[in-house]
Amino acid sequence: MSNSFQDALAGLAAIVGDKHVIASGADQEPYVVDWRGRYRGRAVAVVKPGSTAEVASVVKYCADRRLAIVPQGGNTGMCGAATPDDHAGNVVIRLDRMRAVRDVSPLANTITVEAGCILAEVQNAARSVDRYFPLSLGAEGSCQIGGNISTNAGGTAVLRYGPTRDLVLGLEAVLPDGRIFNGLRALRKDNTGYALKQLFIGAEGTLGIVTAAVLKLFSPPRSSALALVKLQGVAQALEIMARLRGMVGDRLGSLEIMSRSQIEVIRETVPHVTIPFELTTPWYLIVELTDALAGVDLDEPLATALADAMEAGIAEDVTLASNLAQAKAIWAVRHSVSEGNKRSGYVVSHDSVVPLERQADFVTNVEARIVAAVPHARVVMHGHIGDGNIHVIALIDRAHCQEPVTTAALVAQINEIVDDETAAQGGAISAEHGIGITNRVRLARVADPLDIELMRGIKRLLDPNGLMNPGKIFGAGAA
Amino acid sequence: MSNSFQDALAGLAAIVGDKHVIASGADQEPYVVDWRGRYRGRAVAVVKPGSTAEVASVVKYCADRRLAIVPQGGNTGMCGAATPDDHAGNVVIRLDRMRAVRDVSPLANTITVEAGCILAEVQNAARSVDRYFPLSLGAEGSCQIGGNISTNAGGTAVLRYGPTRDLVLGLEAVLPDGRIFNGLRALRKDNTGYALKQLFIGAEGTLGIVTAAVLKLFSPPRSSALALVKLQGVAQALEIMARLRGMVGDRLGSLEIMSRSQIEVIRETVPHVTIPFELTTPWYLIVELTDALAGVDLDEPLATALADAMEAGIAEDVTLASNLAQAKAIWAVRHSVSEGNKRSGYVVSHDSVVPLERQADFVTNVEARIVAAVPHARVVMHGHIGDGNIHVIALIDRAHCQEPVTTAALVAQINEIVDDETAAQGGAISAEHGIGITNRVRLARVADPLDIELMRGIKRLLDPNGLMNPGKIFGAGAA
Repeated sequence: MSNSFQDALAGLAAIVGDKHVIASGADQEPYVVDWRGRYRGRAVAVVKPGSTAEVASVVKYCADRRLAIVPQGGNTGMCGAATPDDHAGNVVIRLDRMRAVRDVSPLANTITVEAGCILAEVQNAARSVDRYFPLSLGAEGSCQIGGNISTNAGGTAVLRYGPTRDLVLGLEAVLPDGRIFNGLRALRKDNTGYALKQLFIGAEGTLGIVTAAVLKLFSPPRSSALALVKLQGVAQALEIMARLRGMVGDRLGSLEIMSRSQIEVIRETVPHVTIPFELTTPWYLIVELTDALAGVDLDEPLATALADAMEAGIAEDVTLASNLAQAKAIWAVRHSVSEGNKRSGYVVSHDSVVPLERQADFVTNVEARIVAAVPHARVVMHGHIGDGNIHVIALIDRAHCQEPVTTAALVAQINEIVDDETAAQGGAISAEHGIGITNRVRLARVADPLDIELMRGIKRLLDPNGLMNPGKIFGAGAA
Repeated sequence: MSNSFQDALAGLAAIVGDKHVIASGADQEPYVVDWRGRYRGRAVAVVKPGSTAEVASVVKYCADRRLAIVPQGGNTGMCGAATPDDHAGNVVIRLDRMRAVRDVSPLANTITVEAGCILAEVQNAARSVDRYFPLSLGAEGSCQIGGNISTNAGGTAVLRYGPTRDLVLGLEAVLPDGRIFNGLRALRKDNTGYALKQLFIGAEGTLGIVTAAVLKLFSPPRSSALALVKLQGVAQALEIMARLRGMVGDRLGSLEIMSRSQIEVIRETVPHVTIPFELTTPWYLIVELTDALAGVDLDEPLATALADAMEAGIAEDVTLASNLAQAKAIWAVRHSVSEGNKRSGYVVSHDSVVPLERQADFVTNVEARIVAAVPHARVVMHGHIGDGNIHVIALIDRAHCQEPVTTAALVAQINEIVDDETAAQGGAISAEHGIGITNRVRLARVADPLDIELMRGIKRLLDPNGLMNPGKIFGAGAA
């Protein structure tokens, strides 16, 4: 190790304490590889500051020495945005020690948390005062709220509560020069100039490190009803959504769709999950209604709406969950899509979002084009139909993915098909997963050059030396 | 008029047509004075382009000749943000001719409108397809949606639906150099890089001109219940809010509070409004519950919750509106606060927002400090208690406001009291009205210098020559 790196380790240890600095070696392994195992980087140190002031000092120390900084939450991201690149001089900053719930107010419906809080801890802290924090996603047991904010995480509650951006009232962040942006205010409205906090939400740590936030809470759902609906197509699912909206308004909580092929993959590869219904149609829709009041009968309007839909030829078959166990069994199918896909081959997954009315054409066209171009691809789909966000996944037999170069070419070919169809339908290539490393070339290809110019301008403004999470969103030459 | 101004009139007319350019003179009067009559500016021309392309051409024409541009919506703003300054070279751009509803989708719950649409027209277009656009405010019959977006307008539906920012899915804007930012996408989620559209929302036209937007629609409220509650204080109003949330969740639609002094002013000066209740307590709360379903009995839970509150000594008296006429009579009081105040003296109004729990201390302290410093001031209050936004208004007898210099000093003195107390309670000086001209000195005094530095950086990035709505938010030396 070079002398300057030895100096850096000592300097960082002087700020956060010896035991909170991890030098390169085996102990760094969990922090320099993304959880999917697709990216591996290097770091002179992984540092765990214990306070906002320490984060600021670490950042300033790095900035003064032109060391690149990689903020990392729970390392559960889908696009490699929290993994360092291959330069040896990176400093990974983890906020694991900053996980206090500073305040929770059932009166104001707010919670103030440090960025290292695990998402499930935030949910639990809300629950402990009879409130509800709606953000919910597969990694909620290990992802950190700072990462959720930095990636503007989506999940299964967006339909009703919006993405993470809509849940953030105020935030605190350390800027690339070590100064502290103090927007940690519990204010429901604020029109004092430009909306600076919005810059840090979804910026994937490229403009600063989110260190704390004030989040919105809600009344917990106390009544619910769930059904599985069998359908001929995506258009029918949208028609059911429209009918339910007319009947129950914003009681519509979740609308998750899966293709028959998606469920077949689960049936083949995830033996511990039983599919509690027969596969007789091309599409399957999970509908959940919720209400903040206890004792509200939601089964009746759900049953009525879906019976009407069957009569009108929109739904083919309907299963109402008559108890919690049945509801859980249906959700279990939805929750094993990632596991099933991973076991079925090399996964080329997509996160496109299109206007709601365009979803039916989008999935039809994109499947036909992928199959025509790559006949050995198996196309499966699942997603959030009320958000316009159906994940299209091409599963490739691993026999076709032995050579990295061939695999990369195949992935690029499929991505291009999906991205072109997304653009043709007026959509965007990432609804909720972000850009990170995975999608930066694709973003550069499809984005309006003016958008990229404005983004690069903002990046330069806040991070003129390009030290904050370099190589993410834009590629290495951003600043 | 100088030759260069004559050239400019000809050049602008060549873009938009002769009859859409108003040269200086009496015809300009409605556009160079704000509606409250507090600011008067000058303009070489008021221009009314008919399309986004024409807006872009006008802006580029002005930018090339270093003419300042003042975007103006319906000219109903509270802070002078749409009024030109005193330089003769300003070009005011009005979007009155761009008022098409381009698309409305009840399926996707979206509406696509041009920026010159009157807010009431947007509401009506939604209603025509059995949908609801919730933004609602006093000026809705004349304000334009572009102005609402540019000022991130608030109003009476924020408690449930959020401010305008939360209602904008996509937008299109003309940048200060005449290029078009094309973010007019009907997407519910989008994580492809920085949230550029957020920059233009609430920027008061200082970063570009919003020309069109895609907005969220909702299911219309079909059931409602309304009550007037008499209270001893603000703390009690918050306690009632918490109890109602526990009982009815997000059916809580409006929570508007008025001080006794506020209602007395209306009783004295607005003869056409009858106060349909006796003034026996210091505070009055309007509570409205709504539900998207028809036929939902909301009177019962409202009556129960408020009866419980009376029993617990939290509410002093409750009047349930038993029909629409009674509800309207109660709302009429709330809607005449501005008229009443204007007739009662010189109005020094404030728009502070504080964390919800701080509102009781805030109003007590601020009233005591104003009355101590300016014994002849009459302090009245009304506002949105669920948003933390109680408007504190000092009414000054016009006898004390004969001399502009004395008046200005008095206003500054009162503002300083309110701003200091706002800061002490962790609040912000503008919840919904914005900064414009009125509040720019106050913002500079109370804001974190880092925030101002970041805002100025963004301003310079998008508008390096400082030509877009100069003198707003920052004062004239912004760029």
